[in-house]
Amino acid sequence: MRLDVPRGLRDIEPEEFDKMEWLRKKFMETLDLFGFKKMEPSTIELLDILEAKSGPSIVDEIYYLRDKAGRELGLRFDLTVGISRYVCSRRDLEYPFKIGAFSSVWRYDEPQRGRYRWFYQWDAEIYGRPCVRSDAEIIELSKIYFEKVGLNDVRVELNDRRVVEEYIVNVIGVKEEEIINELLRLLDKTTKKREEEIILEYTLKGFPKKVVEGVLEMAKISGNADNVLSEIEGKGLRNTGDLRKIVEELEVRGIRDFCINLGIVRGIDYYSGIVYEFYDPTISRLAIAGGGRYDRLMQVFGRSDLSATGAAGGVERMLMVLDQRGLIRIDKRRRIFVAFVTEELQNRAQTIVTELRKRGYAAEMDIYSRELKKQLAYASKYSRHAIILAPREDRENKCIIKDLETGSEERVEYNRVFEKLGTL
Amino acid sequence: MRLDVPRGLRDIEPEEFDKMEWLRKKFMETLDLFGFKKMEPSTIELLDILEAKSGPSIVDEIYYLRDKAGRELGLRFDLTVGISRYVCSRRDLEYPFKIGAFSSVWRYDEPQRGRYRWFYQWDAEIYGRPCVRSDAEIIELSKIYFEKVGLNDVRVELNDRRVVEEYIVNVIGVKEEEIINELLRLLDKTTKKREEEIILEYTLKGFPKKVVEGVLEMAKISGNADNVLSEIEGKGLRNTGDLRKIVEELEVRGIRDFCINLGIVRGIDYYSGIVYEFYDPTISRLAIAGGGRYDRLMQVFGRSDLSATGAAGGVERMLMVLDQRGLIRIDKRRRIFVAFVTEELQNRAQTIVTELRKRGYAAEMDIYSRELKKQLAYASKYSRHAIILAPREDRENKCIIKDLETGSEERVEYNRVFEKLGTL
Repeated sequence: MRLDVPRGLRDIEPEEFDKMEWLRKKFMETLDLFGFKKMEPSTIELLDILEAKSGPSIVDEIYYLRDKAGRELGLRFDLTVGISRYVCSRRDLEYPFKIGAFSSVWRYDEPQRGRYRWFYQWDAEIYGRPCVRSDAEIIELSKIYFEKVGLNDVRVELNDRRVVEEYIVNVIGVKEEEIINELLRLLDKTTKKREEEIILEYTLKGFPKKVVEGVLEMAKISGNADNVLSEIEGKGLRNTGDLRKIVEELEVRGIRDFCINLGIVRGIDYYSGIVYEFYDPTISRLAIAGGGRYDRLMQVFGRSDLSATGAAGGVERMLMVLDQRGLIRIDKRRRIFVAFVTEELQNRAQTIVTELRKRGYAAEMDIYSRELKKQLAYASKYSRHAIILAPREDRENKCIIKDLETGSEERVEYNRVFEKLGTL
Repeated sequence: MRLDVPRGLRDIEPEEFDKMEWLRKKFMETLDLFGFKKMEPSTIELLDILEAKSGPSIVDEIYYLRDKAGRELGLRFDLTVGISRYVCSRRDLEYPFKIGAFSSVWRYDEPQRGRYRWFYQWDAEIYGRPCVRSDAEIIELSKIYFEKVGLNDVRVELNDRRVVEEYIVNVIGVKEEEIINELLRLLDKTTKKREEEIILEYTLKGFPKKVVEGVLEMAKISGNADNVLSEIEGKGLRNTGDLRKIVEELEVRGIRDFCINLGIVRGIDYYSGIVYEFYDPTISRLAIAGGGRYDRLMQVFGRSDLSATGAAGGVERMLMVLDQRGLIRIDKRRRIFVAFVTEELQNRAQTIVTELRKRGYAAEMDIYSRELKKQLAYASKYSRHAIILAPREDRENKCIIKDLETGSEERVEYNRVFEKLGTL
């Protein structure tokens, strides 16, 4: 039979797994540093819950299924929706409720090189009062995580959805909510399409060319925070308060590498305030993570009393950046290989292996009792040292400890083996 | 809207998550000790692959779905099937290929208390030649894992499928393969149903009462390995060679707490040789893990050249045992809380928090700028020490370090804070 994996899926093979495990560990450490709790929301959600976040069209972009009772379900497409459902369903949590996760998500996208329908995300969220310091906390946490894995020059690009909407209303002069939403959707396309294409598409849809051009002009307002804030306040915008606050908060935290970019909106679905994206110089056109405040989801979940902010990033994409920059080195754990020359020594070898493992050494021997040469050929791939049991040495109550890199050997009495290994 | 999780599912909430994370870490350490690689097979498999392991009726016991191209898929119901598919699809692996995983699986069972449709498994497999030492390696690995998490008196119950089949043929006198398979299925029921029920059920099906009783008698043959082996060899059984070998292998590894139990078959689907289950005294009727040799799956996957053996256990069930025995203590990481008395000191507090995190301390402050009393009430839940910034001390370039458990306070100069924390 054919041993295929379904289209868009793949196994996380040992080499990739070790790297992802390392990224996971670093993220968990970061959550600890910031006093975040950790959880994993349900992998399967009721379709209603997924639609609440992303609208009814989401069914085309997820793995949809019915259970045997006919309930409409979907595999989670991110971690935010499940964590938010959990938080909103509880009345006994203490705020600020700071929580993170590192887990699988599924999306039914067209597969591309390095992009699968099943992948991992890291995620950090704070629920409670609307408070810019929470946004700053999430941004600092993300930055520290990037630094822990070696990405020291990640840039933060900030924006505020209320500023964009105010700009469209007051500077461009569009007042109708439906049209504003269309223009926000347009903004999301500026990284993917050329300007002329966008202008053509929207003028064909009946938008005045001046309006489309105005939005594209706005999306280019980007740069040093003070300059951008002065420029847009000069145009009469009043909603810049939170951006001014977050700039101050980031500076207090020693974060310098940020700017304001009026082109960032992060989809139109539910963001309601400050939004941001993180860029690494290696792949400067694709954000490696992003986030923002999403009080609208709290409202849909019936919790207008709660405000929420958070960030998430794709683990495989981060891995791609790290691989390109050669930044991941997994330490092969120091193993000890125990070899034997003749079959009679096999049980003694096994006893030593068992004892080594009890003492916390990663230890192995040849399961198949192959000849010494084959044992050592295998050993040299994973182990720095081998303990070799040979008849002559054994008669003198000794074994050989061999350095597989240098080839040097030493005869050691059995009762001094562990002591000797401690010094290697 | 209703914020429900679909029936049979649940969120892994923070307290449970921390425990599962600890079990995960211990398992990964154990794999390292034994020189196993790690991977995660695809979460979604083609239905064919899942059926190859468990027959076409499996579709009723899994989450089944079709993708948008109409392909029949299922969420993996264990880790063995995906890892085996991966191994069988590769021609470039070196044997013995030792590999483990710790991940989610999904089963569409009737939910029960503590049993969900989405849960975690640990899993360790060895692929290569048929060799009893591989089985012993898996059993030792499992035992060491149990010991690492504090389960020191887990008992191993061993059996060999070939011995059971030989017993049915030679002692009970049934030769037809289809009937033998039915009787193996019967054996699987002995832990769930009373004897009289089973006899009634099978005699109604047309089985001679003597045959059913003979099988039930066989299932009671259990106890000290030497005694059982002598007893069944006395009945003329010849297939006891591997059981004799594994007994020797376990003894060499210092494993004493095992017996042979002819009632253990572990489902009929694909086991082909030695099988075993692990029992903890706390829930003595339910195995906490099990495994065995399953060459038949290799054959179905077109790799008759490969032999496979492995074990797996449910993580939630192990957690249940550990909770009952009070064996898990998650160390709350030592956090430092930074409090401030007046608003002007807030930014200074934030700077200290940021610096603490950079130095690897888990540190927090109040995001909401609440009054000192509320800050400290929160702090005392998660932190042992608080650094308090107060106007009078601040004027002298000092802050207060407070032990939140004893209430004792000390005034410390700002430039000596980190030095002081190092001594706490």
